[in-house]
Amino acid sequence: MSSLLDNINKPNDIKKIDRKDYKTLAKEIRRFLVNNVSKTGGHLASNLGAVELTMALHLALDLPKDKIVWDVGHQSYTHKILTGRKDDFIYLRKYNGLSGFPKRNESDCDVFDTGHSSTSISAAMGLAFADKLNEMDSTIVAVIGDGALTGGMAYEALNNLSALKRNFIIILNDNNMSISENVGGMSEHLSKFRVGEKYNDLKNEVEQSLNKIPMVGSKIAKGIKRTKDSIKQLFVPDGIFNELGITYIGPIDGHDTEVMVELFNHAKKIDHPVLIHLKTKKGYGYKFAMEDPAKFHGIDAFDKKTGKKRVESDKDSYTSVFSKKLVEMAEQDEEIVAITAAMPDGTGLSRFKDNYPDRFFDVGIAEEHAVTFAAGLAAGGKKPYISIYSSFYQRAYDQILHDVCIQNLSVRLIIDRAGLVGRDGETHQGIFDIAFLSSIPNLTILSPMCAEELREALEFSKDFDGPIAIRFSRGEAFEYDEYESNLENITKSNVIVEGNKLAIISLGSLVEEVIESAKLLNDNNIFPTVVNARCLKPIDKDMIDSICQSHSHILIAEEGIKRGGYAEAVFNYIYEKGYNVKCDIIAIDDKFVKQGSVPHLRRKLGLDKIGIMNRAVELLND
Amino acid sequence: MSSLLDNINKPNDIKKIDRKDYKTLAKEIRRFLVNNVSKTGGHLASNLGAVELTMALHLALDLPKDKIVWDVGHQSYTHKILTGRKDDFIYLRKYNGLSGFPKRNESDCDVFDTGHSSTSISAAMGLAFADKLNEMDSTIVAVIGDGALTGGMAYEALNNLSALKRNFIIILNDNNMSISENVGGMSEHLSKFRVGEKYNDLKNEVEQSLNKIPMVGSKIAKGIKRTKDSIKQLFVPDGIFNELGITYIGPIDGHDTEVMVELFNHAKKIDHPVLIHLKTKKGYGYKFAMEDPAKFHGIDAFDKKTGKKRVESDKDSYTSVFSKKLVEMAEQDEEIVAITAAMPDGTGLSRFKDNYPDRFFDVGIAEEHAVTFAAGLAAGGKKPYISIYSSFYQRAYDQILHDVCIQNLSVRLIIDRAGLVGRDGETHQGIFDIAFLSSIPNLTILSPMCAEELREALEFSKDFDGPIAIRFSRGEAFEYDEYESNLENITKSNVIVEGNKLAIISLGSLVEEVIESAKLLNDNNIFPTVVNARCLKPIDKDMIDSICQSHSHILIAEEGIKRGGYAEAVFNYIYEKGYNVKCDIIAIDDKFVKQGSVPHLRRKLGLDKIGIMNRAVELLND
Repeated sequence: MSSLLDNINKPNDIKKIDRKDYKTLAKEIRRFLVNNVSKTGGHLASNLGAVELTMALHLALDLPKDKIVWDVGHQSYTHKILTGRKDDFIYLRKYNGLSGFPKRNESDCDVFDTGHSSTSISAAMGLAFADKLNEMDSTIVAVIGDGALTGGMAYEALNNLSALKRNFIIILNDNNMSISENVGGMSEHLSKFRVGEKYNDLKNEVEQSLNKIPMVGSKIAKGIKRTKDSIKQLFVPDGIFNELGITYIGPIDGHDTEVMVELFNHAKKIDHPVLIHLKTKKGYGYKFAMEDPAKFHGIDAFDKKTGKKRVESDKDSYTSVFSKKLVEMAEQDEEIVAITAAMPDGTGLSRFKDNYPDRFFDVGIAEEHAVTFAAGLAAGGKKPYISIYSSFYQRAYDQILHDVCIQNLSVRLIIDRAGLVGRDGETHQGIFDIAFLSSIPNLTILSPMCAEELREALEFSKDFDGPIAIRFSRGEAFEYDEYESNLENITKSNVIVEGNKLAIISLGSLVEEVIESAKLLNDNNIFPTVVNARCLKPIDKDMIDSICQSHSHILIAEEGIKRGGYAEAVFNYIYEKGYNVKCDIIAIDDKFVKQGSVPHLRRKLGLDKIGIMNRAVELLND
Repeated sequence: MSSLLDNINKPNDIKKIDRKDYKTLAKEIRRFLVNNVSKTGGHLASNLGAVELTMALHLALDLPKDKIVWDVGHQSYTHKILTGRKDDFIYLRKYNGLSGFPKRNESDCDVFDTGHSSTSISAAMGLAFADKLNEMDSTIVAVIGDGALTGGMAYEALNNLSALKRNFIIILNDNNMSISENVGGMSEHLSKFRVGEKYNDLKNEVEQSLNKIPMVGSKIAKGIKRTKDSIKQLFVPDGIFNELGITYIGPIDGHDTEVMVELFNHAKKIDHPVLIHLKTKKGYGYKFAMEDPAKFHGIDAFDKKTGKKRVESDKDSYTSVFSKKLVEMAEQDEEIVAITAAMPDGTGLSRFKDNYPDRFFDVGIAEEHAVTFAAGLAAGGKKPYISIYSSFYQRAYDQILHDVCIQNLSVRLIIDRAGLVGRDGETHQGIFDIAFLSSIPNLTILSPMCAEELREALEFSKDFDGPIAIRFSRGEAFEYDEYESNLENITKSNVIVEGNKLAIISLGSLVEEVIESAKLLNDNNIFPTVVNARCLKPIDKDMIDSICQSHSHILIAEEGIKRGGYAEAVFNYIYEKGYNVKCDIIAIDDKFVKQGSVPHLRRKLGLDKIGIMNRAVELLND
């Protein structure tokens, strides 16, 4: 059976679709999305919510002359479908396959790469000023969610926007969600607006003028005039945006393609920045995603008939170990408070929220504020635990340094998704935290290797005086049967396998690979010592001294950027002390790591058990 | 002659001052400030503007139970005077002397250290939630300027504030300035409010009730009642703040102590967050500072009679070299655009602004937006130069990594005030940029040693493909007579003195110290090779190979944090290659650097010519 989608194979092909078929096309796109994502995994709920708004943008704009910047970018699947990339969806988020985010190297319709939140208005403003200086007549659009609008840099851009005396369109895709439910004054402000009378007027008039299309003459003209008046009515003063010099339009039903096309065509002609407020529903059109949009935000392969994941693990993730342990500790110690930046589910803090709602804070997508707020809580005598993904902590580097560490405040930085995260690619790999945190004085950094050690690290952090970071990986926690409790020495490294000649030092979840590689080496009559670094800062000089005195070769395997990482610090110490040992590092050498499964990426980077074994043999033969 | 200030020697002493003497006290404080800062240097204009608001806060609050968080903190001098630190002002900003910023270790009335902009609301919210959970009845105040309100994290906090169902006072100290004139939609929004009728009503009634103080009975009660009504009238809806759930009060004359005390006493009783909008004048009460507040923002010692600096240098600073060269380049290449985050004067970009207003962008105190905006301009084909101080780039780490470097966009990051900056202390030292930037793939980092090399680095960057950072120090540019043009090799290191046995490698303005130390070593018959590292990333492996093959000892001197710095990268390379040379590093070893003059700090850190010489001798004797 032929479909409308079959006829859309390159940018602007959508313009060949008849208006009356917009709804059918939207349905086909949704079916395509559910079919594909159920097989490959990916972001679903946000994409289902953005189908019509993407269609309307492609109908009203002329790509690639006109430019769309997608905030975060995980909602850009329909945009990819409409720009000739539909056949690549079978390789979605696979190594060398289609990215789940906009990528300039995929298409000239992707004008700016995104991944982290709240960057779109800034980037689009840059593009708009460039086109303005070049006297190019283009339409620049930033598509941003209401969640991303809680991020400070979006506000910095909004505040700066009055300087752009030119057309500029912000599409506010308001689904009242970040990844989880949205918070904050702005969210409350937006929720006051309901799709209302003025929208219905516009809708009726659009429908009327459509009905009149076969006719000619004055009626069309009148109809169009009436539509214009109605659109004018939509430009109502809104508290925040208008005060910042931005014309507010809305709210509009973000699932009504025809009305949006009409509106976008008008908005293109306005000689200053406008914000169009669309109300959308995350997961729209697919029952299971509508009912539980957080679950279908980013999801692994699932059964589209039941909405159930194909592989459900019964093992605890590191996140879940943290989540449970923190609640246990909070029961004993009422000074413990917890903070998330819009990710109560992802960080496992919803459990804390359920148990201690008064001691739980969701501050929105606002990593900077989150960290300094935690510093304030610590200065006020509380014991704050703040959990943020590694790659998002990059946003709070200054706050960690300036507000937490200079004052030596006892803030517990929980770093989730540290190390490789896999399919989200370059923007989400947690491979920089060791480097950027290690340069900060006063900070202690722990990187437990298994579930039990994570519990102990958390226990230790409770009464620790000073800032402390505890980092762990995405995915299942390693249950290490031979784990020996070591609470009093948690800031020291730990020899977990005694061997000779060669020592392999590693950290976090990578220690499991090293244990496996040691077994492979044993089969070749090599019996390496395996060291769990555990505390990355300060480095454990006693351990290094001891290893250097009893071994001739040291290999450090680190799932992070090499430059400024743990291994470099250790080798500098060895070098300064003048030990005569041969050393090598396996780490990520000055490059970003693209998407792929974590095991696949580890293999590519030489960080799997085979890679570690091979490098160990090479080093010994050197 | 005895003065009112003589009687103020500890917190709350100000409450002994009679209301009729408030104006006299304010005058005395101003005289004290001008006298002292004219001798020591320091922040003046902002402090002169905040005298009455600080007095009013101290009159209305009970410190240290109540808590004030000072945004940025350079306006806290009056607060220090009123909390027993007035005699320490002769040591203002000196090594081991009084800090120019709030410091928890100076007084229990300093509840949170600040330095960078826009952190106060977040920190104060943390303190407020802590007190709320502890059921402590305290008043928490954040004092923030209108400039700091352009920073995104202030907005993140405002957005989150509706969660705090408790009293909380934000004092908006609106002087329509950042360090330079203020920009953006928020600034335009605030400027609409003029101190008006309602303020005058309140003022009259406050005066009336004061006149009635000797009397008793119903009249006072009536007067008070009337005052209250008048204050109630001030709680008017304001576009932005009220929409975020914050009660807006104002605007009020920020130089009228009595009215402010009255108002603060009322504001303390409100059961939710309020924002009090004060109109103040930077430099108030000192002619020269009122006329040129930007000059008197942070100033060296000056003649208080003439307002002229005591020592005027006729040499160009690095900033000025950059400023002039960029304008020259922009004349030839119209794709060049320039961006500042609220510091057109400090970064020297006002010259660019004057010449190319259309290609110049002041985005406000908004480093995150600034960098991503620059990335957008680069994606649009422009050649953006963005100049920010080293310590403020910390705010944009994620944007540099995520928005510039992953996409390999040709953004020129100009890093001013790199290295030690001196008297502003821990929060302002530019000692982390090498470490946090070096871990980022795709980035090239240049650190020219002298004025001419800076010009060449800028020339080189113009057509460079990819992100590039050019860092230079605060202060006078080194004019190196023997400089040899080397444009085609600017990404390579440069041997500037040929010697033997020992090589000393250094970078940026520190190379001048190394040249001096080499002369001292020559007097002792040691003839070191001196290398100007120049390009910090990628490191110049050819130079290292060559040095290692011809020298037995290498010393690297680096005015930055050791961990993750340039020297560590070089030594790791040497170690990996297995060269047999003895090495040592002089750098800042895992600590923050407090205030002091740059020469003094260099001496303390062993980074002056004597320190470098001594370490060289030690290394050779090792």
